[in-house]
Amino acid sequence: VVTYRVQAETASIDARARAIANEQSVELPTSAIDDPYVLNEIVGSVVGISDAGRNVFDVEIALASATMPPEPGQLCNMLFGNTSLLDDVTLHDVAFPNAYLTAFGGPTIGLTGLRRWLKAPERGLTATALKPQGLRSSALASIAHAAAAGGIDIIKDDHGLADQAYSPYEERVAACLSAVAKANAASGGTSIYAPSLSGSLDQLRQQVDVLRCHGGRMALIAPMVVGLPAFHTIAREASDIAFLAHPSLAGAQRIAAPLLLGRMFRMLGADATIFPNYGGRFSYSQDVCQAIARHARMSFGGLAATLPAPAGGMSLDRVDEILNAYGRDCLLLIGGSLLADRAHITKTARAFTDRVAAHGR
Amino acid sequence: VVTYRVQAETASIDARARAIANEQSVELPTSAIDDPYVLNEIVGSVVGISDAGRNVFDVEIALASATMPPEPGQLCNMLFGNTSLLDDVTLHDVAFPNAYLTAFGGPTIGLTGLRRWLKAPERGLTATALKPQGLRSSALASIAHAAAAGGIDIIKDDHGLADQAYSPYEERVAACLSAVAKANAASGGTSIYAPSLSGSLDQLRQQVDVLRCHGGRMALIAPMVVGLPAFHTIAREASDIAFLAHPSLAGAQRIAAPLLLGRMFRMLGADATIFPNYGGRFSYSQDVCQAIARHARMSFGGLAATLPAPAGGMSLDRVDEILNAYGRDCLLLIGGSLLADRAHITKTARAFTDRVAAHGR
Repeated sequence: VVTYRVQAETASIDARARAIANEQSVELPTSAIDDPYVLNEIVGSVVGISDAGRNVFDVEIALASATMPPEPGQLCNMLFGNTSLLDDVTLHDVAFPNAYLTAFGGPTIGLTGLRRWLKAPERGLTATALKPQGLRSSALASIAHAAAAGGIDIIKDDHGLADQAYSPYEERVAACLSAVAKANAASGGTSIYAPSLSGSLDQLRQQVDVLRCHGGRMALIAPMVVGLPAFHTIAREASDIAFLAHPSLAGAQRIAAPLLLGRMFRMLGADATIFPNYGGRFSYSQDVCQAIARHARMSFGGLAATLPAPAGGMSLDRVDEILNAYGRDCLLLIGGSLLADRAHITKTARAFTDRVAAHGR
Repeated sequence: VVTYRVQAETASIDARARAIANEQSVELPTSAIDDPYVLNEIVGSVVGISDAGRNVFDVEIALASATMPPEPGQLCNMLFGNTSLLDDVTLHDVAFPNAYLTAFGGPTIGLTGLRRWLKAPERGLTATALKPQGLRSSALASIAHAAAAGGIDIIKDDHGLADQAYSPYEERVAACLSAVAKANAASGGTSIYAPSLSGSLDQLRQQVDVLRCHGGRMALIAPMVVGLPAFHTIAREASDIAFLAHPSLAGAQRIAAPLLLGRMFRMLGADATIFPNYGGRFSYSQDVCQAIARHARMSFGGLAATLPAPAGGMSLDRVDEILNAYGRDCLLLIGGSLLADRAHITKTARAFTDRVAAHGR
């Protein structure tokens, strides 16, 4: 059962709902179908319409899972393919049958595995991003070292880093992994560096090989940038690597964020999921953000939980507020405000990690 | 130079524009950057703001191509990644430097090649879709045969067809290719069958191999479903296959359709591009549709032209109107209304192809 949120007049909502049910199944008027199997088993059916007020309706449609083999692209194609072209409909929710969860498999490391890697069974977790784009690998590695020395758990590439001339992928991975390893050796810490992956499935595989070769075990990946089929394939194949999903290109409106960034990225293998925190520079509300975190962690057909990672325009003085909002099972990602004072990154990072560790004690 | 269409108050548009320039380049306040190369070469800069009325502004931002190696995912990431999360901004236009066009390569067969394959140097071209989903391969092949006997140029799978149990990919491809070949042999026609591809890059490669094996030379593919990196990779590799791009999951609002379905799909290798025609069941205006067709065919750094294919809720009595709107360099795709009278598909198809052939004579 799939829920679409439709803007429509009350008088037309029944017809709109039937049209969507048809569009996402057979794409043909039922009057033009004579095959009984198709009529009985394949045509989508409207199972509920509820009025959400202000000419907005939640339309529940039952679609046949026979049309959607458990392949990420085809799943989205049948859930929202042509309907994404209607500017007054969003994909709001999906009740996935358990068979999909089993087939897709979900996170292989997940929230629990990451806590184990980081030797942090209870406290909130911390992350930062290596920026700005344009710095050489050695400069990025210095920032990574400083952040790790300040006890940041996960140090990820800015999602805009790929294989640019000024900091090529392999050179950057080698430099940053080595810098973080040195900081860990000096402090007894467990910081992890996560480089940004990009490109086709072939390129993702090469990049994962390079990462493993240099001793890495976590990567940043934007599922909507590489494509959901490629994301799922690499996440399943590289089950020893933790994948931190980034919301780049995930859009604001067309697929509900708790569904896409929470449940769908989780189902396809995200071990952690980054999303724009409320009150920052993006447009998600606190309700939406808390729903994303809930969908990432809630009971979901036996799948491992995904670590929710609120990010974007956050500062140190919001640490307690954010941990109160999400609980401690989350990864606080603070990028810009940690890097602003370039000479004192370790000190600022330490203030951040101390504050997170102190929360709730 | 990238144009974003932003909804904002006049008083805030300058700051909004600078924020987008920053978001899509360094993601860090310039005050936190001390590296001169980054400040001079990498930080995006606002080069123009024009007031489009009603609190809508077109913001032109110059972004550094150094941040975007010519890889489709990374290109979109840097053009619109984080900004896609702002619900009041759309990606409106991009002036691509010629180096990208050369690197991506565009269509290998294109409008001209398809006209040659179809022995149709001047007339409008015709297409239909095999539906509904749920029919067995033999039933789909019968429809394909009937449509080919009626002279339809391109007979494509419904984009929802993948590798479902009721019509598995290889069985369906073999049956439909053989049915169309028989019809061609009987009529002297040149109809082409295009099956729908789906899945990861591995699966796309297997499906292309199967298609070639059975003598096929055209395929339907939804770039936003398989992911742009996979689409581009397979389109380049399988340069002997014509790719008919489908707009599934391309959304209505967030990236301007003429840019995405017209120029970007073309740049990445679409030989033809399907889009929802105005006046049908989708929400594109006639202006938008004509802009898509223009972007598909216009002079574009030496790239071959892509055949524009208006589709969706069209009927025979609109043939002249549509050909007047787009000119004859287009592929008219009529699905449902051609298949409604299941007993007389060949006759209806012939009426369609005759009318298209007669246009402008």
